[in-house]
Amino acid sequence: MRATVIHAPHDIRVEDVPDASVQQPQDAVVRVLRACICGSDLWAYRGAAKRLPGQRIGHEFLGVIEHIGSDVSSVRVGDLVVAPFTWSDGTCVYCLEGLNTSCAHGGFWGSPGSDGGQGEAVRVPYADGTLVKLPADAASDERLLTALLALSDVMGTGHHAALGAGVAPGSTVAVVGDGAVGLCGVLAAKRLGAERIIALGRHSARTDLAKRFGATDVVAERGEAAESAVRELTGGAGAHAVIEAVGTEQSMRTAVNITRDGGAVGYVGVPHGSGTGVDLGVMFSRNITLRGGVAPVRAYLPELLADVLDGTIDPSPVFDREVALEEVPEGYRAMDDRSALKVLISL
Amino acid sequence: MRATVIHAPHDIRVEDVPDASVQQPQDAVVRVLRACICGSDLWAYRGAAKRLPGQRIGHEFLGVIEHIGSDVSSVRVGDLVVAPFTWSDGTCVYCLEGLNTSCAHGGFWGSPGSDGGQGEAVRVPYADGTLVKLPADAASDERLLTALLALSDVMGTGHHAALGAGVAPGSTVAVVGDGAVGLCGVLAAKRLGAERIIALGRHSARTDLAKRFGATDVVAERGEAAESAVRELTGGAGAHAVIEAVGTEQSMRTAVNITRDGGAVGYVGVPHGSGTGVDLGVMFSRNITLRGGVAPVRAYLPELLADVLDGTIDPSPVFDREVALEEVPEGYRAMDDRSALKVLISL
Repeated sequence: MRATVIHAPHDIRVEDVPDASVQQPQDAVVRVLRACICGSDLWAYRGAAKRLPGQRIGHEFLGVIEHIGSDVSSVRVGDLVVAPFTWSDGTCVYCLEGLNTSCAHGGFWGSPGSDGGQGEAVRVPYADGTLVKLPADAASDERLLTALLALSDVMGTGHHAALGAGVAPGSTVAVVGDGAVGLCGVLAAKRLGAERIIALGRHSARTDLAKRFGATDVVAERGEAAESAVRELTGGAGAHAVIEAVGTEQSMRTAVNITRDGGAVGYVGVPHGSGTGVDLGVMFSRNITLRGGVAPVRAYLPELLADVLDGTIDPSPVFDREVALEEVPEGYRAMDDRSALKVLISL
Repeated sequence: MRATVIHAPHDIRVEDVPDASVQQPQDAVVRVLRACICGSDLWAYRGAAKRLPGQRIGHEFLGVIEHIGSDVSSVRVGDLVVAPFTWSDGTCVYCLEGLNTSCAHGGFWGSPGSDGGQGEAVRVPYADGTLVKLPADAASDERLLTALLALSDVMGTGHHAALGAGVAPGSTVAVVGDGAVGLCGVLAAKRLGAERIIALGRHSARTDLAKRFGATDVVAERGEAAESAVRELTGGAGAHAVIEAVGTEQSMRTAVNITRDGGAVGYVGVPHGSGTGVDLGVMFSRNITLRGGVAPVRAYLPELLADVLDGTIDPSPVFDREVALEEVPEGYRAMDDRSALKVLISL
């Protein structure tokens, strides 16, 4: 089968790889219909996150069950399913409490020895614990299929950030990061009842989408100027709930500095760089909470799926470029140079 | 009047200073009966926190109202009162939500221009918002008076840490720091229903007190050995709720590393040192929350006071040395060399 492989920074290729197959009784094989490229894939693409030469890549996909192992009972061959960006057994103490990312049997698509999402098919360990079944007729609805793909990562991650930030009905929220996760954070905050949502971003295509998703204000400044702007918009206090969806020292520093005393930063940007941007002195004196991490999107999938299916939320507009599998390297280049927000891969 | 003054690191003196007096209609003057020395005073004593030469010091006291301004209505001359370690107006949005430490009119005893707690009397701004009235007959009960003094800081701070760590009935808690705040954290965790409380400490007098306060296990190791010991005690997982009551890079690193995935570090140790000890990579991958800061003890005073008065909690044993006001410099030396856990000042 064909799949995307990373050989070195900036060296992404689509190649022949061994066919995905059932290896354990709990496995399923999913024939991929839609996949995509994540902002976090760019850390590997740019060399900021190490990968072994020849490692597979991609962790977001939906598709149709092609094979199942003898122990799989929740899905059947032919079912349309979406996968969260990690697999998990669904039965351990962490999975039962909704922290599937800490499952002892869990793992990330594209880690050494596993299939990546950006390929024709994926072997899914612990299929019962991992996959979520979708309505069969969604396969013929292009827009819906795209929206459902967002549930594999960015929508659930934005939701995790909003929960971490403590978004509640009536909240004032600020969102640092205008990538797909930040935009889904806007959508998640709106869904949770935020009254005011301040999106930080300077690219009008993205901030326009933020407004469409529920942002009430846009701050185009950066650094200290952005902090001043958010303070001005909030009567000097800052936002009670702040979503950090970038993962750099500067973005975290901005997030902490625009948080209202007693508020929280919900962070989902994968931390990168030597400094953390976490100024404990500021956080201590103002009682700012830092809460977040890798999102257990599997736990959020049922409720978010219901809201996508009934039209309450539609994250599909975060995808602004579509490529075929063989064009994936071009998709990476487009995301790397920010000419694309998020690239959809149609198979 | 006589009061404690810090002139330079290790240069603490008891001197004649201007009498405390009512300067604003909201002020009261409290004649101090009991005060104490805080572990955080040692940061100033050791030069790690800057003070102006001649600045007053001490932020924990209880005593009798001697004068009140014309606007004071909640206390009268002769009332026995306890003060939290910050003053606050009691009416602003932060005070109303229980974050008195962020009150725009608030401040710390001993800050430039204000009286410190380690003196014969203290001018209390915003007396109605700040002071909490105690039963008059407590003045004749030495043990009770000592327990009530702990409400000015360490007991409320330990409670704040326990809340930040998310302690709930049945919790497994670990406490980093065997000072008075850490020990009060043990007591607070027990009060909140923790089932297992692991105290980290190597001084048997302190760990014995931790056990008396409710610790079920003691870990005497430090650093990585302590982390291993806590993991062993918790089936490899770590503690769901971790109290960080020191404020150094090493203590924070230990706290983060012994927290169970999905758990929280409740931190109240005043941050010191160049590094934070906050490893965002670890926190991110394990969804560990960091929550805490300077404790709004004024908000907690009513409920903790009720529990001290009815005997549910008794933090008085954290005081293991008693000095007169003129002996305060000796008290600092005793706490600095750790021969005293917490020094009570009787006037």
